[in-house]
Amino acid sequence: MIQDDALKTACSINATRLLESIQTLARFGARDDGGVDRPALSTIDIEARRHLVERAIALGCTVRTDACANLFFRREGLQDLPPVMTGSHIDTQPTGGKLDGCYGVLAGFECLAALNDANIRTRRPFEVVAWTNEEGTRFQPGAMGSSAFVDPALLQHYGQAKDSNGITLAATLAAHRDAFPAIKTRAVQENAHAFVELHIEQGPLLELADIPLGVVTGIQGVRWYAVHCKGAAAHAGTTPMHARHDAMTLAVAVRAEISALAHQLGGDDTRITFGRWTVLPNSINTIASDVTFTVDFRHPDASVLDAFDTRLSACIERHAATREALFTHPPVVFAPSVIRRVAEACNALSSPLMNITSGAFHDAMYLAKHCPAAMLFVPSRGGISHNPLEATDDDHLVLGTRALAHCLVQLCNEAP
Amino acid sequence: MIQDDALKTACSINATRLLESIQTLARFGARDDGGVDRPALSTIDIEARRHLVERAIALGCTVRTDACANLFFRREGLQDLPPVMTGSHIDTQPTGGKLDGCYGVLAGFECLAALNDANIRTRRPFEVVAWTNEEGTRFQPGAMGSSAFVDPALLQHYGQAKDSNGITLAATLAAHRDAFPAIKTRAVQENAHAFVELHIEQGPLLELADIPLGVVTGIQGVRWYAVHCKGAAAHAGTTPMHARHDAMTLAVAVRAEISALAHQLGGDDTRITFGRWTVLPNSINTIASDVTFTVDFRHPDASVLDAFDTRLSACIERHAATREALFTHPPVVFAPSVIRRVAEACNALSSPLMNITSGAFHDAMYLAKHCPAAMLFVPSRGGISHNPLEATDDDHLVLGTRALAHCLVQLCNEAP
Repeated sequence: MIQDDALKTACSINATRLLESIQTLARFGARDDGGVDRPALSTIDIEARRHLVERAIALGCTVRTDACANLFFRREGLQDLPPVMTGSHIDTQPTGGKLDGCYGVLAGFECLAALNDANIRTRRPFEVVAWTNEEGTRFQPGAMGSSAFVDPALLQHYGQAKDSNGITLAATLAAHRDAFPAIKTRAVQENAHAFVELHIEQGPLLELADIPLGVVTGIQGVRWYAVHCKGAAAHAGTTPMHARHDAMTLAVAVRAEISALAHQLGGDDTRITFGRWTVLPNSINTIASDVTFTVDFRHPDASVLDAFDTRLSACIERHAATREALFTHPPVVFAPSVIRRVAEACNALSSPLMNITSGAFHDAMYLAKHCPAAMLFVPSRGGISHNPLEATDDDHLVLGTRALAHCLVQLCNEAP
Repeated sequence: MIQDDALKTACSINATRLLESIQTLARFGARDDGGVDRPALSTIDIEARRHLVERAIALGCTVRTDACANLFFRREGLQDLPPVMTGSHIDTQPTGGKLDGCYGVLAGFECLAALNDANIRTRRPFEVVAWTNEEGTRFQPGAMGSSAFVDPALLQHYGQAKDSNGITLAATLAAHRDAFPAIKTRAVQENAHAFVELHIEQGPLLELADIPLGVVTGIQGVRWYAVHCKGAAAHAGTTPMHARHDAMTLAVAVRAEISALAHQLGGDDTRITFGRWTVLPNSINTIASDVTFTVDFRHPDASVLDAFDTRLSACIERHAATREALFTHPPVVFAPSVIRRVAEACNALSSPLMNITSGAFHDAMYLAKHCPAAMLFVPSRGGISHNPLEATDDDHLVLGTRALAHCLVQLCNEAP
């Protein structure tokens, strides 16, 4: 019985093994403060990848890689159909925690092990993936592995990206190939049946609602800008207020106006952040000549993002400031067919669930262009992430993995 | 006739010699952009000092120094009375101009030369002084020479100050003594009859009013603070607006409130500047956890400065921010007896004049604690200073020097 296989796999999830696997992976790049520092394709990341490869082989999987060093751990199905994929990434922020990305990969491994333990054969193949350089801290931009998987042409450009020591991504990809000479390279863009990514929320919504599982229906869109306000440096003591051109006074006014229009356009779903500030000459007794600040605006509605762009431009022009668009990504709406399976899994486990829009980017943002995709969230304690204090209750980690297992088996057993 | 001597000296000011002396001194540390970079007690500063010493000796002066390497160029009077002093400094900002400080010293030298040319003997001795490290860019704080002259105990503390290469002021003072072994050290705190400092305005007021001479009646007081606003770093995409503790949002609100109360308390004389900003972690997609900004508040009225301090504290407390007092100096009111002589000199030359409060600090701020003191300003083109573009019309430079000469001779001839 298909239904039974899904529930049986979910019940075969071994809490101890899952939690231990998280602690084990966290030893690669462990920080003294309990966090993890594991830059993408660094020596320590390659050691962590070797650990995963060895475990996958022990679980009976075949392992493959691709041109962007993504790792695919495959459990064959009964039929030669496009596989169901799950996974995330194992690179971390410099002051990262144990869960961001790793949880999704290791939950996938736990599903592989549970399927073995329950002696279940799925109709479709099942693949766990570790995507390369999702964090984007060693090489910019982030999500290189998943975006290059979906659009291999991007790799031409990505290869030139350099880390802070001047090492190119292309060089680290070559080193990765040398480190794993036995691993075969898979064909470009093989079809997939579905992709599901399990991740910590990295925000406070599930915890605030006291709900253990979030069915992620999409990822909000984003616009990043740098706004530059020009003034004139002058002596703080000798220049009358009416004769000043204070770039910071201008910047604060522009910031307030952008914030107001963001809230007006976006309502409760608005996320507006002015995170990075550069002030020149940045001296106590000199009026600022130049202020540059960044705008990070996110919203699930593409028309709101477009309207924001138009209104922002008008605001900037009115104040004789200038802006540079740094990054843009439209909102992602996940596939109803996969969202349904995620919700079914939560219900099958009698867990309360909540629909949620992801505020952060994830590999699933790109995978959604490749195949039907969705995500599942577990709560982040205090909403804290990108921080050694990042944590999720063990019960939630186990419940999330059970729901993932249920959902993946259901998808694996779908007819062509 | 005393009156005649003052006017005769003013008329003996040689415009060509004055303007050439400014160009000559500017060659020591000349920048390619026309500015000057002459750090206090650097090799280049010692060369510039040697140039002044040689010129003073050629003019028949005796040269003395003191424990803080101030240089005193003395023309004896008819009687052994406390001298009348003038002068300023010859160290510059790293991107300084030719006039800030140097103009006051070289105008003093021109007065020495004019007195010689006119064959005038004054009743009192007349001293031109070059004060050490006024700018405070190589060693902090600024105005070390003039403040240590007034309060020699400060030198104990100043000696430990280090420049960016770790060289102490004490070491550079020793090197200065070695460079000028023949120059005698004067007694500590000899009395002075009066001090007059001629300086460029470094602000736009004289130019805006189209008046060539400013009678400086005092120096506004100042309070410097660092205000720290604490928030919590969080993900820009995942954290709802209502759950944020954005340190920059708090800082901008506190800044607005401080600005409003400064204007409310200080009226038209208010000078309020928020010049230095430090934002952590200063990342596009992370909400700021910590923002520190500086407050530079200046006003000529001590009671306004005190009220500002009280109201600022209340504001900071109300917002659960913190503050650190970085520097404070009360307003300086110059001596009416000297101010009168400065105004008389302007009138004797039939020049329009304007009473003005100095917005910037000057060596005269400290000398006012030692003897009756005042200042005379000439216009700064565009109010620009601390900049290679710093400039004053030649006519204004000459007129200012003539007024200085008149005023100094009148003071020199005052009865005991």
